[in-house]
Amino acid sequence: MAIVLGPNRYGKAETRVVRVSRDGATHHLRDLNVSISLSGDMDAVHLTGDNAAVLPTDSQKNTVFAFARKHGIGEIEDFGLLLARHFVASQPTIRHARVEIAEYAWERQGPHSFVRSGREVRTALVHSDGPGGRESVVSGLTDLVVLNSTGSEFHGFIRDEYTTLEPTRDRILATSVTARWRHRSTDAAWGRSYERARRCLLEAFAGTHSLSLQQTLYQMGRHVLAECGEICEVRLSMPNRHHFAVDLAPFGMDNDNEVFFAADRPYGLIEGTVLDDAVPTAPGAWS
Amino acid sequence: MAIVLGPNRYGKAETRVVRVSRDGATHHLRDLNVSISLSGDMDAVHLTGDNAAVLPTDSQKNTVFAFARKHGIGEIEDFGLLLARHFVASQPTIRHARVEIAEYAWERQGPHSFVRSGREVRTALVHSDGPGGRESVVSGLTDLVVLNSTGSEFHGFIRDEYTTLEPTRDRILATSVTARWRHRSTDAAWGRSYERARRCLLEAFAGTHSLSLQQTLYQMGRHVLAECGEICEVRLSMPNRHHFAVDLAPFGMDNDNEVFFAADRPYGLIEGTVLDDAVPTAPGAWS
Amino acid sequence: MAIVLGPNRYGKAETRVVRVSRDGATHHLRDLNVSISLSGDMDAVHLTGDNAAVLPTDSQKNTVFAFARKHGIGEIEDFGLLLARHFVASQPTIRHARVEIAEYAWERQGPHSFVRSGREVRTALVHSDGPGGRESVVSGLTDLVVLNSTGSEFHGFIRDEYTTLEPTRDRILATSVTARWRHRSTDAAWGRSYERARRCLLEAFAGTHSLSLQQTLYQMGRHVLAECGEICEVRLSMPNRHHFAVDLAPFGMDNDNEVFFAADRPYGLIEGTVLDDAVPTAPGAWS
Amino acid sequence: MAIVLGPNRYGKAETRVVRVSRDGATHHLRDLNVSISLSGDMDAVHLTGDNAAVLPTDSQKNTVFAFARKHGIGEIEDFGLLLARHFVASQPTIRHARVEIAEYAWERQGPHSFVRSGREVRTALVHSDGPGGRESVVSGLTDLVVLNSTGSEFHGFIRDEYTTLEPTRDRILATSVTARWRHRSTDAAWGRSYERARRCLLEAFAGTHSLSLQQTLYQMGRHVLAECGEICEVRLSMPNRHHFAVDLAPFGMDNDNEVFFAADRPYGLIEGTVLDDAVPTAPGAWS
Repeated sequence: MAIVLGPNRYGKAETRVVRVSRDGATHHLRDLNVSISLSGDMDAVHLTGDNAAVLPTDSQKNTVFAFARKHGIGEIEDFGLLLARHFVASQPTIRHARVEIAEYAWERQGPHSFVRSGREVRTALVHSDGPGGRESVVSGLTDLVVLNSTGSEFHGFIRDEYTTLEPTRDRILATSVTARWRHRSTDAAWGRSYERARRCLLEAFAGTHSLSLQQTLYQMGRHVLAECGEICEVRLSMPNRHHFAVDLAPFGMDNDNEVFFAADRPYGLIEGTVLDDAVPTAPGAWS
Repeated sequence: MAIVLGPNRYGKAETRVVRVSRDGATHHLRDLNVSISLSGDMDAVHLTGDNAAVLPTDSQKNTVFAFARKHGIGEIEDFGLLLARHFVASQPTIRHARVEIAEYAWERQGPHSFVRSGREVRTALVHSDGPGGRESVVSGLTDLVVLNSTGSEFHGFIRDEYTTLEPTRDRILATSVTARWRHRSTDAAWGRSYERARRCLLEAFAGTHSLSLQQTLYQMGRHVLAECGEICEVRLSMPNRHHFAVDLAPFGMDNDNEVFFAADRPYGLIEGTVLDDAVPTAPGAWS
Repeated sequence: MAIVLGPNRYGKAETRVVRVSRDGATHHLRDLNVSISLSGDMDAVHLTGDNAAVLPTDSQKNTVFAFARKHGIGEIEDFGLLLARHFVASQPTIRHARVEIAEYAWERQGPHSFVRSGREVRTALVHSDGPGGRESVVSGLTDLVVLNSTGSEFHGFIRDEYTTLEPTRDRILATSVTARWRHRSTDAAWGRSYERARRCLLEAFAGTHSLSLQQTLYQMGRHVLAECGEICEVRLSMPNRHHFAVDLAPFGMDNDNEVFFAADRPYGLIEGTVLDDAVPTAPGAWS
Repeated sequence: MAIVLGPNRYGKAETRVVRVSRDGATHHLRDLNVSISLSGDMDAVHLTGDNAAVLPTDSQKNTVFAFARKHGIGEIEDFGLLLARHFVASQPTIRHARVEIAEYAWERQGPHSFVRSGREVRTALVHSDGPGGRESVVSGLTDLVVLNSTGSEFHGFIRDEYTTLEPTRDRILATSVTARWRHRSTDAAWGRSYERARRCLLEAFAGTHSLSLQQTLYQMGRHVLAECGEICEVRLSMPNRHHFAVDLAPFGMDNDNEVFFAADRPYGLIEGTVLDDAVPTAPGAWS
């Protein structure tokens, strides 16, 4: 047995950069949370504390701000690629860069006034091994909270000795969608692609008469792949936010799926992947 | 010295009730978080554990669900009044009821499909001492996050020995508004009133050329009072979410208020009240 | 009707200051979160944006750091008094100062190495109107999570038409205590007082055979007052963290209070005050 | 191109089970958060909504409670193995089970009275493919917050065009440790192993004169492996919780590492693995 260093990475997480750009009196606003992870020739820093291969995380933060000034912030996928490629290109000791970006949406209230929309958060996860190396772009969203008040059934499941759940032909189906989708290339119309993928997720959620949350999940992924040729793989994580119909019989009332208790924990958690089977998997693109 | 019981109250907090109502194939959805506090003849339960005067918090929760079924959920102010009056009327030991409700907004995606909007949370705080007694309705909102990318100055302030801040003629002004407003009566067009008050807050925030966040706060309260005759007092709590222009000079770049670092803590916190001076204060309405 | 400015205050919230002091090779560590609110002659800043009366919140933050250097950090009550008195004394426009401090506890692991304890957070809330004026000190704690696995009953309560709860002679009683206590003067042995008050809360919680959480709350407050002569009023806020015995009968098992489901929401919320009736109330000390 | 279902799993997350056991008048308390994920022959449920292969997540929750009653809760690793093996053994459609458990520690205050300790959370992640199949146990902890007030340097790093950080010979080093360690087998003295691994992490953090957080991380992993023969791989995730020495020169004061500002975001994030190179990797054990 020898004790050795295994996989490792480091970087500056959660740099909160806000970029204002001016179009005459009209301002535009971008609001990002940028997290960087770098890896490469990092044995010495772990084994002896020799930092000669280490670009400080403080410099990474500075780079985010400087690039926001120099290049502006276009689509977050492009901003992530710009940063990731820079880090790998700039230092021989840095072999791989990972840039994760969350973008918060704002709605315009005036020429230079904005209200945070509070709708889902748009995300991007970019990897680059530099020119000629492996690169990948995964786009996505979190906190897209959706609910169908009918059109959801659950029955025909296994009944073991610990099963007390009654089958149902009508229930609320609610979830907070975290979705990520891998692009076929590192070049796409990111903004239009995002809006299309988001629309597909919502359409499939609303349009699927659901016999299980797994079925809904699969239809959501399938719809994205079918409509978005630039996307080759979709990963979905969907908590089943249980809404229990309250038993009102003790108070002499029926409850035909009108009054529900929205529970916090525990919750079902459904995770699944839908992909084009002609494309090689890329495990490194996702983490 | 005698050790005695002072003010006290108890109740069920954060009952999460979701109400679906059907208009043919079209469903309507309401999503509330209801917290109840009752007080009255509660000496015995504290001093000896005699529960004869205590309506269990579990029964209060049941009442929320049963009332949602029996009466439906109209405006949250009305639902709060209904509950508060019920508790005081139903038990002689309960003299005062306080009902606090938060409502989460959903946007329609289909006849029975919804997306949580994520915009601000609407609130109501109702007190009732029962028929003939004191009653009050305070409406409000939380988590209304707004930002002006220009039109904000800060200068002419005190400079003491610990002051290093430079005056500025142009900065980002950003805050997460918590606003509450007291109504003159317990009868109003709550929904229209809410939309009008919300619009006034946004208009005044966007429209005020600000020399200080206090000035903006006052204009927001003033605009609500001026436009909403049914409202007699507005209380605002507004954290100053600092956005610091990043010094890019070390990288040979200027930064004419284009790139900002959005800080978490510490933050300024501005709290203030704007009111009609002809109306008596009502401290009990707010807590 | 005239629209006027009502009560208001402003300040820097949540300045996170960590103070290291050296005793040879042995270091001592203090870790605080300090929030300041000032009020006084602030009409102009609200009405016209004239900041001549305003000490910037940035200067308040600087003062926290400078005072930590100059005076060190003794007990948080004293540090709060020092800051509050300074602000009122330093500027004629500032008439009232409120300083709220939370302290995070660390346990020693070595001469200069520490582990955050994670036990409750100690708090202080200080008001000062300056020399000769009103002053008050409220100490306290939050997040003291306690549980009795027996010795708690609940029965004899009101049964109305919405009551389905069964009376019980044995249940889990669990809560997260937020306690605050007002001191008779602004001079006390704060550290010893804190440890004594904390011990009293724990002793009374553990030692009370409880017929209701209200009874337990009262005994906790009473024990603090009886043992701590320097304290004249205790306010407690205690959520009833419900632990429901799981019905295992469907699986052919009994459950004699052995297996519980710990619920999140809704929860009971019990709030109450215990005080020395010979001492005038001081509503301004608490908010 | 064919759109197909890829990797997927489902289960009940965050079942909060509390178990009381009685030793005469003395009670013992265990407080867990249990999350289950199952996978296997789940094509049909995704493609058509046929639930014939699906054990409801509600039944999984019931199983947690029933097993807590039937078997008691020993070490969380054993409880996880018991559950994981049960699910795979009980249904032919379930091929793989993953059980993740977090345990909250309580300190005794009396025979049946407890205070939540608030120290770190102990974790276990168990996989089982059933008898004869792959099994793994990963133990760990989260929220172990540690700080060294000296004995940390950072210099000799890369200086690129975006580097403004000054090298330092003395700084605070603080982090919130998330550690997980893989066991060589599924049979160990889990409780003693946990205490030893925890002690090793603390000892190495306190005892390493650090030239970089990476060096400290490696020493922590190394110390666990060297002292705990039952462990073959350690993964650590350690945010660098920056504490910045405040510049007090504007106030005529020096600051010899006495007064610090504890920042929230951004933060460095250091992730690394230390392992016995003679043992095959087991990527499936960790996710």
